[in-house]
Amino acid sequence: MKLQARQADIVTSGPIALLNSNDCLKLGVGENDRIRVTGKDSAVCTVIITDRYIPEGLIALTEQTMNKCGSKDREDVEVAYSPMPESVRSIRSKINGGTLSKKEMDAIVSDIMQGNLSEMEIIAFVSAFNVNNSDLTEIAYLTRSMAATGKMVDLGVRPIFDFHSLGGVPGNKITPTVVSIVASEGLVIPKLSSRAVSSACGTSDYVDTFCDVEMDTRKLVDTISECNGVFACGNKDYAPVGSLIIKAENPMGIDPRPMMMASIMSKKVVIGTTHLLIDIPMGEGSKIPDIKSARQFAKDLIDLGSILGMHVECAVSCADQPIGRMIGPVLEAKECIGILEGHGGDPSVVDKACGMAGIILEMAGEKDGYARAVEILRSGRAHKKFLEIVRAQNGSPVLKSTDLLPGQFVKDIHAKRSGYVQYVDNACMVAIAKGAGAPKDIGAGIELLHKRGDYVEEGEVLFKIYADNQSKLDRAIESARSRRPMLVKDAEVKAEKDMILERIPSKEMLDLIRFRNL
Amino acid sequence: MKLQARQADIVTSGPIALLNSNDCLKLGVGENDRIRVTGKDSAVCTVIITDRYIPEGLIALTEQTMNKCGSKDREDVEVAYSPMPESVRSIRSKINGGTLSKKEMDAIVSDIMQGNLSEMEIIAFVSAFNVNNSDLTEIAYLTRSMAATGKMVDLGVRPIFDFHSLGGVPGNKITPTVVSIVASEGLVIPKLSSRAVSSACGTSDYVDTFCDVEMDTRKLVDTISECNGVFACGNKDYAPVGSLIIKAENPMGIDPRPMMMASIMSKKVVIGTTHLLIDIPMGEGSKIPDIKSARQFAKDLIDLGSILGMHVECAVSCADQPIGRMIGPVLEAKECIGILEGHGGDPSVVDKACGMAGIILEMAGEKDGYARAVEILRSGRAHKKFLEIVRAQNGSPVLKSTDLLPGQFVKDIHAKRSGYVQYVDNACMVAIAKGAGAPKDIGAGIELLHKRGDYVEEGEVLFKIYADNQSKLDRAIESARSRRPMLVKDAEVKAEKDMILERIPSKEMLDLIRFRNL
Repeated sequence: MKLQARQADIVTSGPIALLNSNDCLKLGVGENDRIRVTGKDSAVCTVIITDRYIPEGLIALTEQTMNKCGSKDREDVEVAYSPMPESVRSIRSKINGGTLSKKEMDAIVSDIMQGNLSEMEIIAFVSAFNVNNSDLTEIAYLTRSMAATGKMVDLGVRPIFDFHSLGGVPGNKITPTVVSIVASEGLVIPKLSSRAVSSACGTSDYVDTFCDVEMDTRKLVDTISECNGVFACGNKDYAPVGSLIIKAENPMGIDPRPMMMASIMSKKVVIGTTHLLIDIPMGEGSKIPDIKSARQFAKDLIDLGSILGMHVECAVSCADQPIGRMIGPVLEAKECIGILEGHGGDPSVVDKACGMAGIILEMAGEKDGYARAVEILRSGRAHKKFLEIVRAQNGSPVLKSTDLLPGQFVKDIHAKRSGYVQYVDNACMVAIAKGAGAPKDIGAGIELLHKRGDYVEEGEVLFKIYADNQSKLDRAIESARSRRPMLVKDAEVKAEKDMILERIPSKEMLDLIRFRNL
Repeated sequence: MKLQARQADIVTSGPIALLNSNDCLKLGVGENDRIRVTGKDSAVCTVIITDRYIPEGLIALTEQTMNKCGSKDREDVEVAYSPMPESVRSIRSKINGGTLSKKEMDAIVSDIMQGNLSEMEIIAFVSAFNVNNSDLTEIAYLTRSMAATGKMVDLGVRPIFDFHSLGGVPGNKITPTVVSIVASEGLVIPKLSSRAVSSACGTSDYVDTFCDVEMDTRKLVDTISECNGVFACGNKDYAPVGSLIIKAENPMGIDPRPMMMASIMSKKVVIGTTHLLIDIPMGEGSKIPDIKSARQFAKDLIDLGSILGMHVECAVSCADQPIGRMIGPVLEAKECIGILEGHGGDPSVVDKACGMAGIILEMAGEKDGYARAVEILRSGRAHKKFLEIVRAQNGSPVLKSTDLLPGQFVKDIHAKRSGYVQYVDNACMVAIAKGAGAPKDIGAGIELLHKRGDYVEEGEVLFKIYADNQSKLDRAIESARSRRPMLVKDAEVKAEKDMILERIPSKEMLDLIRFRNL
């Protein structure tokens, strides 16, 4: 039936339409039913019935819906009942413990992609599809369905190496170093990173401060074929349904394992990865609390890799405190480039980058990967490769770490007593850096002058907060005061030594080791 | 901080507040964070940021929120960040496959009760708490938590008998008959029923046509102590959190098993049930499709009963077509009372009611419960007890089935060909009855003149639709035309004979049977 559209000042998470109850009876729809609204184009909304605000003959739509169905205020639109998508039935079946077929999974993903499912329904799916109510075959289906929602990249080479960090620890600026070491050995490593979702700085946020990270598929393929490596941002074109799912998950702060696995692996399927190393940061506040969970997760990732035809290994890394000393886009870029330039740098970043690169080199046949990685870094070859990729991504070919300038509004945070730094709290540091404006304000962030195990005198500077303006600096200082980002006490504590705590090789490797031990 | 409240014309499922982004920065809150708004009273809302509609210094709230926090349009309210409730963490842990403690379950239920969780969070909980990701101990915790959200009833007697039907089949008008038979044997059976959620007529909807179903706890206890039985509506005072959960589940049409179990059992905990019979209607379109699922579900219900200290038995009943011949409040009341008056009645209702009552009598020690139930019904003792309860519930002590008059707008639906009725579709009949106005219009509904297995001549009346006015009758006719509520074909099909397909006794009974067979 025809109704006159009215644009309503309503901001909601999903598309809704307000209708008068008499029109609803005529349409045969009830509250929470779906209707299809058609102007030049069409959109599906959820019905809200209100006689108080909407007289008969009108339908109130949000601005987004108006745009989507190509209609204007006071124009007539065609309104009809839209049956619940079949995929809601599949989600219900999943909630009731059923197993989803490939076809059902494809339908769910495609309906999410087309906006046919409400955020409520997406959350229901994600929550129902939990570790105890999903199997690896279903996760593999989901992975492939997600990959198919965007462009696929054909690099025309094999093998293709890649790595991925599960995240949850700030300051993890190893990507450009790992990629540069691996690519300088002639191995193809098309690393797609992302921007921060809830953290203070994602890889693409700091790489963006010194070269382009957004590029189309053609440019991506060209850069890889020229340099063997890339530090691109993979958010937009590849497996785009992932970001719609994250958008629904975000309010509750959830990221359940099966969905996380499918989301990670879908981007690897897109790029054609054959050999994948997954970094599992372990420690308080990270996604993985202990070695038992880390091993279980590693096993699942390795098995999922097998189903997808990908050789997967995992490395459990130390995530008890921030990696390195800098948090925030410009600051992390500065620290990362400094290491490549050979200025030494904080051992935690150097050790982790070489450890990860080393495992990848070993996956490619190298005997002692770690030693080889250190050698490539020390010799300056990694730096040379880094600058080559930076230039290909439209950055300066003579880029120096000193070119990068953090925010000019700076506050030193002092130790109130002498003693040993007992801990540096990841979540607090992230909150403070975000308070200072990171990642949007690229100069904002934190520089740690001390880390766990350091002895400090009363009054010594523990860390510095950087911001691009005074009011945000004040906000960050206030945030630091209301939390406990660092604790100084008499008790002596151990500093980290090795960043890679345990390597979990693929099944084939395990079989090989077992075979050797026979 | 203080902001001026503005009442906004917004209808959403959860409480939201619209704020300007500058105020959000000052408050340190982001989109989807929670804030506490305090006027005379206080309410928690989810933040939506909009600079376009909300200038600095204002906060837009819905009418419900305005009322809840006791503030008026253009008055100042105090606004502060409200941390995410601890129970969201428990829901996240459940999504990640964790096991919930009693304390966590209590916190989740109490937060749902107090409106601290959004419908999204409730759906996430319900979806995560599925058959593969919950155990009976957790379901028992949930049951007791839900029971504790409302009044508890102490009848001061034992044993207390009760029964419950899982529903999903229309026309299931056995409650007054079962209660009357059981109570006339001196057994206490405090049956709390409910109104329709998505069906055409709940037990309380048709009982309400001839006596009061809403009563306070005092009246409930008095009626039971006077009559041993009652047909009360249990929705409002008892385990009220259940209806909040159903409200969240309803848009997706879900009712996952663990939640359903907790919801059913919580009301039985409230009333102090010691012996419970659960009717599991099985058949196409009902909640339980086959005998294997029915047996598994029965086992879970019996085991949950054990944990809760309740003797539970189950009966799987035939639900392939409507029970009896009437659907809709007045029509069902009429059919039900007719059976008690001894007018015979459709065998499917009589057999099911006597079958259910018989099992309860056997749980109380009777040898042949079915025969005894039939005898009590035939002798008129059940009818006497029925009228006694009706009088106690302020109904007429001389109530007759002929007193009840269905809607005066009637349409006969004729057979288009001769043959056997192949099936009567439950879902179609419910849709037609609802289209006619049931359960709100008490005279609306359907009378089936034929059921499965009947031979009909072309032109014979298959069923009648009743409505309280012409426009709703037209709507129902239209609904009937667009569906296939009955199919008539040459092929001969079998009519049902026995309504109770299988009895699933409690574990102790099984042990006893096993012992006897040794």
